[in-house]
Amino acid sequence: MCGIVGYIGPRAAVPILLEGLRRLEYRGYDSAGLAVVAKGRLKVVKAAVRVDELRDLVDDGLTGTAGIAHTRWATHGEPNDANAHPHTDTSGRIAVVHNGIIENSERLRAELVADGVALASETDSEALAHMIAAALDGAVSLEDAVRKTLLRVDGAYGLVVFDSKNPDELVVARNGSPIVLGIGDGEMFVASDVAAIVRHTQRVVYLDDGELATLTASEFRTRTLKAERTVKTPTTVEVIDEDYQLGGFDSYLLKEINEQPDAVRRALLGRLDERFATAHLGGLDLDPTELRSFRRVKFLGCGSAYYAAQVGANLVEEFARIPADAEAASEFRYRNPVIETDTLYVAVSQSGETSDTLSAIRELKRKGGRVIGIVNVTGSAIARECGRGMLLHAGPEVSVASTKAVTNMGVSFAMLALALGRVRDLSVANGKRIVDALAKLPSLLMEILKLDAEIAEIAGRYADAEHMFYIGRVRAWPVAREGAQKLKEISYIHAEAYQAAELKHGPLALIDATMPSVVIVPGDDLVTKNIGTVEQIKARGGPVIVVTNTDLPENLADAVIRVPACEPELDPILLGVPLQMFAYHVARKLGRDLDKPRNLAKSVTVE
Amino acid sequence: MCGIVGYIGPRAAVPILLEGLRRLEYRGYDSAGLAVVAKGRLKVVKAAVRVDELRDLVDDGLTGTAGIAHTRWATHGEPNDANAHPHTDTSGRIAVVHNGIIENSERLRAELVADGVALASETDSEALAHMIAAALDGAVSLEDAVRKTLLRVDGAYGLVVFDSKNPDELVVARNGSPIVLGIGDGEMFVASDVAAIVRHTQRVVYLDDGELATLTASEFRTRTLKAERTVKTPTTVEVIDEDYQLGGFDSYLLKEINEQPDAVRRALLGRLDERFATAHLGGLDLDPTELRSFRRVKFLGCGSAYYAAQVGANLVEEFARIPADAEAASEFRYRNPVIETDTLYVAVSQSGETSDTLSAIRELKRKGGRVIGIVNVTGSAIARECGRGMLLHAGPEVSVASTKAVTNMGVSFAMLALALGRVRDLSVANGKRIVDALAKLPSLLMEILKLDAEIAEIAGRYADAEHMFYIGRVRAWPVAREGAQKLKEISYIHAEAYQAAELKHGPLALIDATMPSVVIVPGDDLVTKNIGTVEQIKARGGPVIVVTNTDLPENLADAVIRVPACEPELDPILLGVPLQMFAYHVARKLGRDLDKPRNLAKSVTVE
Repeated sequence: MCGIVGYIGPRAAVPILLEGLRRLEYRGYDSAGLAVVAKGRLKVVKAAVRVDELRDLVDDGLTGTAGIAHTRWATHGEPNDANAHPHTDTSGRIAVVHNGIIENSERLRAELVADGVALASETDSEALAHMIAAALDGAVSLEDAVRKTLLRVDGAYGLVVFDSKNPDELVVARNGSPIVLGIGDGEMFVASDVAAIVRHTQRVVYLDDGELATLTASEFRTRTLKAERTVKTPTTVEVIDEDYQLGGFDSYLLKEINEQPDAVRRALLGRLDERFATAHLGGLDLDPTELRSFRRVKFLGCGSAYYAAQVGANLVEEFARIPADAEAASEFRYRNPVIETDTLYVAVSQSGETSDTLSAIRELKRKGGRVIGIVNVTGSAIARECGRGMLLHAGPEVSVASTKAVTNMGVSFAMLALALGRVRDLSVANGKRIVDALAKLPSLLMEILKLDAEIAEIAGRYADAEHMFYIGRVRAWPVAREGAQKLKEISYIHAEAYQAAELKHGPLALIDATMPSVVIVPGDDLVTKNIGTVEQIKARGGPVIVVTNTDLPENLADAVIRVPACEPELDPILLGVPLQMFAYHVARKLGRDLDKPRNLAKSVTVE
Repeated sequence: MCGIVGYIGPRAAVPILLEGLRRLEYRGYDSAGLAVVAKGRLKVVKAAVRVDELRDLVDDGLTGTAGIAHTRWATHGEPNDANAHPHTDTSGRIAVVHNGIIENSERLRAELVADGVALASETDSEALAHMIAAALDGAVSLEDAVRKTLLRVDGAYGLVVFDSKNPDELVVARNGSPIVLGIGDGEMFVASDVAAIVRHTQRVVYLDDGELATLTASEFRTRTLKAERTVKTPTTVEVIDEDYQLGGFDSYLLKEINEQPDAVRRALLGRLDERFATAHLGGLDLDPTELRSFRRVKFLGCGSAYYAAQVGANLVEEFARIPADAEAASEFRYRNPVIETDTLYVAVSQSGETSDTLSAIRELKRKGGRVIGIVNVTGSAIARECGRGMLLHAGPEVSVASTKAVTNMGVSFAMLALALGRVRDLSVANGKRIVDALAKLPSLLMEILKLDAEIAEIAGRYADAEHMFYIGRVRAWPVAREGAQKLKEISYIHAEAYQAAELKHGPLALIDATMPSVVIVPGDDLVTKNIGTVEQIKARGGPVIVVTNTDLPENLADAVIRVPACEPELDPILLGVPLQMFAYHVARKLGRDLDKPRNLAKSVTVE
């Protein structure tokens, strides 16, 4: 969840580090810091502040052409100046930035204290700096000292180490927390996310778990924890720096909501086969025989990816007529699940780094489960761990609240379900109907975005609510869950999703004039049931906002958001978008930080 | 959800009807009414009041030895005097009380209006009175007129019809809404629930769907809608009138919480087999070969039964190592689910009358699914529809918020899972461990009930909260869901349950000093993960109440409720009880109606 950036080369390091941090800040932001070597001495600036404030703390004259930097999301120890990174050893020679959690840190810290080391922070990360400094005695290189230290460490890390006595190299290591090297022209970059370096170079190398690298301005070499050399070939990333710029929008959230027509177009590109009425998903690496061999599909994800996964499960049942369900990856990994060899497991994650999902995948693989990954970030841990799957092609998502990635998940699941259906009993005619409908989504999304002023007006009327219910059933149920999640995370309003028929079993007790309900009413065969639900709420005096794609009785609700209809199976994809816009406008009215909600981080790489 | 009672015999009807209504009031209570024939004329008293207030409206001198009465929970038309039952025809000859929903009521009402009938209410039920009155012309009997009327009606009903010109008989009919006849000595009773009549007689006859009955003081006869005679033999119910009396408690809720040791003892009685370390569940009617034939188990329920069903699914996976899950019955019935012949479907309902669950069962049976019912009420629709299953033996549950039935569900699921496990790979030693643990539950429940004062104190500290989170993972997840449901329905505090690991994916944004979290921490192998969850919440300033059965670090939480430990698989059964007590004390502090929360009804017999 934290962010790392490092630089070594001919240029001044501080501006590069600060700009890199800014691009990473969305990953975690309760404190920030950097270290450079200026005039032969290590200089560390760090505090429990945001990156913009860190910039003010840095002396304008701070020189140095190599350095490391960090933004932090607290796990061990509260957010304060001492706990901010980089951490140094007692002599101030070694500086370390670290993402992840060291599981045996209590013991390691106790050993250091027993050796007479005065610890300056409550973090697990500080121990690494002291241990590496101590290991330099008798080590042949900084990398050797880091390697020896890491052999004593249990847990997850992505880290960069800097020796002020030898500022011509950086040592980098990865285990469970992403690290990418950026290969420049006579300069090298390192970061936890390509976002921090893509304005400088698009040629990157992703470290694997258990790998270390030593970078100089001109080259890099990689080794395993057992000191065996590894060979890494740089790849070129598609993302460009503009993807990380606001471009006139007030927030990444709004920018990414508006990018959805393009994002969906990219997801569909080259995958729809009109002739055979199916989808071509080469990355799945499953031939028709294998595609037919699955008796069941289980989707795994966390947060919005989990809710989106429920859309996926519904689509698979509808198109392929094999049972499918979605489960929170964290629950799955810890409950000793029964793994079935005739089930296709689908792991879903925007970042491709979500810790619980990654652990679930490893559990599955250990037990012989067949798993594919659906992720947005090329080269991410989940993409590499699964080895096969689909890319979301949503483009970089910077706002903590996911929007375009969630929409592209729905589109990707529809294509997966279509492919599973068309090797079974889904007819050509029905397949064709879905292919045509998918192709229409980008233009329908454009129509939805035009409702902005109308949705803003409705949002303005309900922004004062303390609570809301989001109600849906069957296809609309995951839409309601994701809608409530969106409102909750960016507006801090307590929104809770309920299955429509479950209202009578408890939640109706909360309905009164102060508790608005957002009811999702797709124009499918359950429309009269959903009208009944609206009436039940209104009979108890609750305000109702209906989100629909069909004609409804006049005066049914206090507010109606009407979006264009598509084929009913794809309703969940389109009906989710006005809920994003609603949440955006409520949060904006309330003056929330749209891209960086309190307490949250973009990519949850810790448990 | 509404309640019906009728009497015909030598005694004064009004006191019997009023007392019967009082026993039924928990099923629905926004209006009440009764009709008797006094001095040859039909006398109707009805209003949008509770039964105690209705009593005040009834003239003390109101005589008559036959009559019908009703308590209403509004479905069609708001709660007001005109919409209260009984309904009469224009001439005031025929009176009708009706539970259920007439689906073609719009058309039937329009036809009556076209015929010049002035409708007095907005209800679907009133139409029946007019239609029956009209059908009396040319009918050979009141039953014949009712039968002809019902042939034109689509929908669900339980109804009693009374002809003031012939007050020596009542006509009764059932389709989808329960009706029980009480066979007295020279007198007859009819009710929607045995609760209303058990103080007078324990000999009862349950009508089947599509059946009518004519009652006189001395006899009853039954026919189908096609006028074919049916033969019904009275059975004796086990419940007695004391089950419906408060016996010194301030509410049925508190009484039923305290009955749990006895209720669990009854559920276990005669079912545990120590020698073969299994459970004998004769009602399942499944031999070992059939028990082994299932590759999967799916539980279906609504509300608390749905949350309890998740406990059941976890137990089946743990003991039998076959995949199991739980789904809201309403979602299942409407999503055209794939029905598998090697899956055991388990339908769960306290009342055995829950409409959505019953519909799910019928969907399953139509498609050849094998389904058993787990219910608390003998002779209920689900018990009869399934034909096999388990009785909860919790005794009558009167409070709307379910407590002892939920606990007995957990116990029953454990026995079912044990039986499924012991025909598979669950060892004798492990089976014995579970049998012994189950046998200990009643005495452990006694221990938990002794924590009352301590829990009351903690509840007092948090009763002012507007919101709460209930957090659990894996085994504790359904405990958290049910705990939140309980608080929500009786205190109207917005409590929401979350899986522990999902907190970081959105809900953490809501955590501050005004948002307490109840965290369930079983003493199982996930205890350190759950301690981590508590720390994450505290790091964001949220108050934490821990419910646990193990030793935890001191000062971990702001309040700790510690209950005795059992075997870890059975943790969810015991850990749920302190949450019932917590919700009770919060609601009591807030002055809520403990047994009759607003907007809710006990048994949800409408969609």
